[in-house]
Amino acid sequence: MLDDALIRKLGSIVGRENALTDDRTRAACSSDATRWRSDPDIVLRPRNTDEVAGVLKVAHENGIPVTPRGAGTGLCGGAVPVGGGISLSTERLNAAPALHKEDLYVEVAPGIINHDLQEIVESRGLFYPPDPSSWTRCTIGGNIAECAGGPRSLKYGTTRRYVLGLEIVTPEGEVLFTGARTVKSVAGYDVTRMMVGSEGTLCVITSAVLRLLPLPGARETVSAVFKDLRSAAAAATALAGGGLSPAALEVMDAVCSEAVSAYLGVGLDPGALLLAEFDGMPGQCAENADRAARLLEGEFGVAVRRAVEPGDADKVWRARRAVLPALAALRPSVLIGDVTVPGSKLSAMIEEIMRISSRHGVGAAVFGHAGSGNLHPALLIDDKDADEMARARAAMTELTQAGSSFDGEASAPRGIGLDRQPYFDMEIGQSGYEVMRSIKHYLDPGGIMNPGKMFYED
Amino acid sequence: MLDDALIRKLGSIVGRENALTDDRTRAACSSDATRWRSDPDIVLRPRNTDEVAGVLKVAHENGIPVTPRGAGTGLCGGAVPVGGGISLSTERLNAAPALHKEDLYVEVAPGIINHDLQEIVESRGLFYPPDPSSWTRCTIGGNIAECAGGPRSLKYGTTRRYVLGLEIVTPEGEVLFTGARTVKSVAGYDVTRMMVGSEGTLCVITSAVLRLLPLPGARETVSAVFKDLRSAAAAATALAGGGLSPAALEVMDAVCSEAVSAYLGVGLDPGALLLAEFDGMPGQCAENADRAARLLEGEFGVAVRRAVEPGDADKVWRARRAVLPALAALRPSVLIGDVTVPGSKLSAMIEEIMRISSRHGVGAAVFGHAGSGNLHPALLIDDKDADEMARARAAMTELTQAGSSFDGEASAPRGIGLDRQPYFDMEIGQSGYEVMRSIKHYLDPGGIMNPGKMFYED
Repeated sequence: MLDDALIRKLGSIVGRENALTDDRTRAACSSDATRWRSDPDIVLRPRNTDEVAGVLKVAHENGIPVTPRGAGTGLCGGAVPVGGGISLSTERLNAAPALHKEDLYVEVAPGIINHDLQEIVESRGLFYPPDPSSWTRCTIGGNIAECAGGPRSLKYGTTRRYVLGLEIVTPEGEVLFTGARTVKSVAGYDVTRMMVGSEGTLCVITSAVLRLLPLPGARETVSAVFKDLRSAAAAATALAGGGLSPAALEVMDAVCSEAVSAYLGVGLDPGALLLAEFDGMPGQCAENADRAARLLEGEFGVAVRRAVEPGDADKVWRARRAVLPALAALRPSVLIGDVTVPGSKLSAMIEEIMRISSRHGVGAAVFGHAGSGNLHPALLIDDKDADEMARARAAMTELTQAGSSFDGEASAPRGIGLDRQPYFDMEIGQSGYEVMRSIKHYLDPGGIMNPGKMFYED
Repeated sequence: MLDDALIRKLGSIVGRENALTDDRTRAACSSDATRWRSDPDIVLRPRNTDEVAGVLKVAHENGIPVTPRGAGTGLCGGAVPVGGGISLSTERLNAAPALHKEDLYVEVAPGIINHDLQEIVESRGLFYPPDPSSWTRCTIGGNIAECAGGPRSLKYGTTRRYVLGLEIVTPEGEVLFTGARTVKSVAGYDVTRMMVGSEGTLCVITSAVLRLLPLPGARETVSAVFKDLRSAAAAATALAGGGLSPAALEVMDAVCSEAVSAYLGVGLDPGALLLAEFDGMPGQCAENADRAARLLEGEFGVAVRRAVEPGDADKVWRARRAVLPALAALRPSVLIGDVTVPGSKLSAMIEEIMRISSRHGVGAAVFGHAGSGNLHPALLIDDKDADEMARARAAMTELTQAGSSFDGEASAPRGIGLDRQPYFDMEIGQSGYEVMRSIKHYLDPGGIMNPGKMFYED
């Protein structure tokens, strides 16, 4: 707990009305989209970089844990203040983006919502590709901290590729600018990209220079229903390797489709769903979508639907984005895994997921970015049922090991945080773990930045 | 100097015939493509990771400097063993690449030549984009250490984007694997990409997992001659922002064109040259090249040449790749700068280069990756003439400052090494410099890895 003198000191930096210790505000900042929960001692809402630096200096001098918080939509517990202390909200770090249209970059504050940024840049004919499922609510600061992806990361890469430069505040309260405003600049160690995905454990991000692309002139969505997920995944692998440059290639199994139908009140055809998005110059986009449709009809014998109008495509993609809340509505809790395997191992991995979850008697659904081999096995459980929780945890550990045995990786663009901490060293190996922990200890010797995340406690 | 016992010990690890102390071998490993020169005490040619680890252990225990060396084509002095000690050649770390066609990656040893890898993967319908000018000689290990780019980095990014995983040997001789075999995997701090571009100052790279793309079905080169470099650069900026996704957009001024004509014995038309490469599906590639040609003819009033056959295109690109040796043939030495500015500042930067070099009475030529705002001012000098050298150095410092004042960056994909060390902290700022130096000291506490590079000596 913080004493009154410290609370007053912090309040004098951000203004008393932005230094909140009431139970309701603290509870609102105690969790994210996971089942983890821990109240902070205080919620601070700084308005600018200087205020963030001031807060960090006080935290540093007094050993107070600092957990940065965007919109709280994270899927790994990253914004959960397990050590108490300060929940540092970025909601007031929301200055309007400075768009440099000719030079294809934008300077943004961390508190801006992803989809708001998308609309601003698209209205000027530009394009910011990262599109996490929660894009209507999540913040750019959180996206950078967790290195968010999204369906379009298949063609366009994750957030890391778009972060050219960062203004950060170090755990000692020093303000640094790392990186550049130009695309090609590479000088020295890539500290900027090491901060991307560091999950609030190394610094607070107070501003970012993001690379933009010209907005593609056309987009088209191609979708088809398959008898099972393995067929849909095989089709996704075929499309991914066909030179058609799909922007996104997503799959969901029949459990997901049914859940989404019920959740959104729409009538999806029963079966596993494949969604592919193409974009580019109008003629080229249509040609690629044509080829994809012919491949799906010819080699996989499925009926293909095509959505060219933005409104029609939005409907299809809303279904994909609703998978997680739809699954969450089926059972009290969802334990989500995240396994990326080479395309050639997708089918075997899907079989493994089904085998492992059924052996442990846990209900499972699977969806994911199949074009890049990334699957989310979702275990549908009641987290109040200790026995079921134990079986689900055992199943998840086996799933993660199975992923590793397929030359795969246990994690992908939603972070380690609390949720995947037990699997982190398994994935990266003990020596890689030690290298990362060394970097953490070196850059944050006091251990105040988001303690308890990513690494085991000492 | 190393004593006989240490030389014998190192010889027992790599084999006596691969532990060379004769003057000729040491002289051959004393330099790279810069004017810097310093003999190592011994040249070691390990055959595998175990031998590299063995060498590093001995070096660590005895405080011997280790300077990794690929083909010695670097442009920043990175392979120059300024501290003496061991020149660690990767020439025998050349096991055949293991291509995983379906999963779009290849595992390579560091000693493989870039262009050899290109040919291997292209024969299987795959594509490894990074194409530094020295690609027929430079090694992949060197490319990774310096984060090499090349003309195609405009569309495809630099080496960093293609390195999925690395096997490295730490300065203590420990073997680590960092990263992944899948594209999307992101877990923990991005140590892999921090090693890319670390210029041999943190580790020795012994193996790499590189991401591949499907080989584009068609390529076409569009070129045109302009009255001056500013017009050519303005055309490049227009093409870059036109949504045509050029793979490469290069310019060279009239001095470069004339030098290349003489060097290769070809007759390039006098003036500044713009080269643009398009690739993709055949119809789409042709359409983009059509649009580019119409834009150049319509808005810039130049005559456009198009090369569709690989042989014809190769001729044009050979001219671009010959710029550096052609300039080097004009005067005893060339001092090359590297400035990246936003596209809107390209024209002003070109003017500045001309103004600064003429004020210092130094002959200059300019070429570069104009599509991404990256210019190489080349000062043509006699490095035996101390006065001219001093004027050239002063001009280069001013050029670098001018670049910074245009929101630009002083360096790009050819490394800091020795050559750009004086400008490094100017570019990244003192606090960024200290962060990087801290990382260096932490990961290489004995300071044995490529000492004297990147950072000032303490």
